[in-house]
Amino acid sequence: MLYDRAKEDRAEIGARLSGERGLTLIKPFDEPEVIAGQGTTGLEIAAQARAAGVEEGEVLVCCGGGGLTSGIALALEAEAPGLRPRPVEPEGFDDVARSLATGAIQSNDRLTGSLCDAIITQSPGEITFPIMQRLCGPGIVVTDEEALRAMAVAFTRLKVVLEPGGAVALAAALYHAEDKRDIIVVASGGNVDAPVYRDALARFA
Amino acid sequence: MLYDRAKEDRAEIGARLSGERGLTLIKPFDEPEVIAGQGTTGLEIAAQARAAGVEEGEVLVCCGGGGLTSGIALALEAEAPGLRPRPVEPEGFDDVARSLATGAIQSNDRLTGSLCDAIITQSPGEITFPIMQRLCGPGIVVTDEEALRAMAVAFTRLKVVLEPGGAVALAAALYHAEDKRDIIVVASGGNVDAPVYRDALARFA
Repeated sequence: MLYDRAKEDRAEIGARLSGERGLTLIKPFDEPEVIAGQGTTGLEIAAQARAAGVEEGEVLVCCGGGGLTSGIALALEAEAPGLRPRPVEPEGFDDVARSLATGAIQSNDRLTGSLCDAIITQSPGEITFPIMQRLCGPGIVVTDEEALRAMAVAFTRLKVVLEPGGAVALAAALYHAEDKRDIIVVASGGNVDAPVYRDALARFA
Repeated sequence: MLYDRAKEDRAEIGARLSGERGLTLIKPFDEPEVIAGQGTTGLEIAAQARAAGVEEGEVLVCCGGGGLTSGIALALEAEAPGLRPRPVEPEGFDDVARSLATGAIQSNDRLTGSLCDAIITQSPGEITFPIMQRLCGPGIVVTDEEALRAMAVAFTRLKVVLEPGGAVALAAALYHAEDKRDIIVVASGGNVDAPVYRDALARFA
C-alpha cells in the first residue's frame, strides 16, 4: 500500500489497517524485537573493534526513528562500553539531535525535501528515545550534498553502493570529524535509484 | 611507468627494467606466490560452500592470465574437489578458453577493444595454463554488454560496485548458465571509471 508521505501519516495508516483486519502491527523502529535485531550490528562492531584493539571511540550511525541507533547503543553498552554511539541525520530533519539536546522528544516540521528519505521520520520513538538519551552522544547533522559526496567516496574507495540516507554517517566522519578519536561508521543501506546515484558520481566521483 | 597497451609489451618493459636496475620482477599472474595468494579466494569459497552444504557445482572466475583462476583451482582441488572452476573471459579476448579447447597456449590478436580491460592479457601463463588445463572446465565467453548488465545487477541487487572485467563471471552466471548445478561467482574488482559506471546504470539499471 503506497501513501503520500507529505500529506498522510503512515503510523495512522498502519494502526487503522491492523485494527480493521485484525493484523499484528510491526512498527519499523519503535518495536523491541526490531531494535534487538538491528542491535546485532552493534555486536558485530564490538567484536571487530576488539579484534582491532579499539576500546574507545565514536560509532556514527545513520538515524531515522532510532531503531538501529538504540539497538547498537544497547549492544555497545553490554559489549564495548568505551564506544559511544552518535546519531547522524540530514539537515532540516534533525529531530533526534534536537530531542537529545533538549531532553524531550522533538518533531520535524516536514517529512519531505531531503534526498535522505530513507531516514526521515517524524520524531524518535517512545522506546528508542530514552535508550538514545541514556547512551548516545550528541547528534550530528550533514547536508544532502555531503551525503552525495560520501556516496561517491564509497563508490571510489570502498566499492560499496550507498543510498543518501545510508551514507550520512560516512559523511559525518569525512566532513564533521570533531576530534581524533577512532571513528567507526555504519553504512546502512543501498536502495538508491540509479538516476540519483549517477548524479552523485557525475558531481563528486 | 605508463605504457601503450596496444603497441608496447608490458612483460618486455618489466624484464628490461628489472635487468637495468637490478630489481626483482614480480609478474602479475605467472608467479607462484601471486597464484597462492589469489588462491586464498578458493579457500574462502570452499569454507563457505561447506557451511552452505554445497559439495558440487561450478565456480565461475573472471580470468585474464589465469593467476586467480589457477590459484582458486588449486585451493578447490585440496579443499572442495566437487567444485569445478570455469574461467570467464570477454568476447574477442578468449585466449584461455581457446587454450583449454586446443590443449596448447593460444594468444589474442589484440590487447585493446574491450571494456573488460582489467582481464585482457596476451595469453595464459606458462605456470597458470598447466594448472588450469588439469583442473578447470571449459572457458565461458561473455560480451561487453553482458558485463555491463551484470554490473547493473550487482548495483541493484548486491550493492557492490564492479568493474566490467570483474563482472564477467556474474554475467556468465546470469546469461550463460548451461545447467542447473549450483553456481558460485567470483566478483573480482571494482576499479571502474565513473563515466563507464554511469553509462552501465543509464542503460541497464
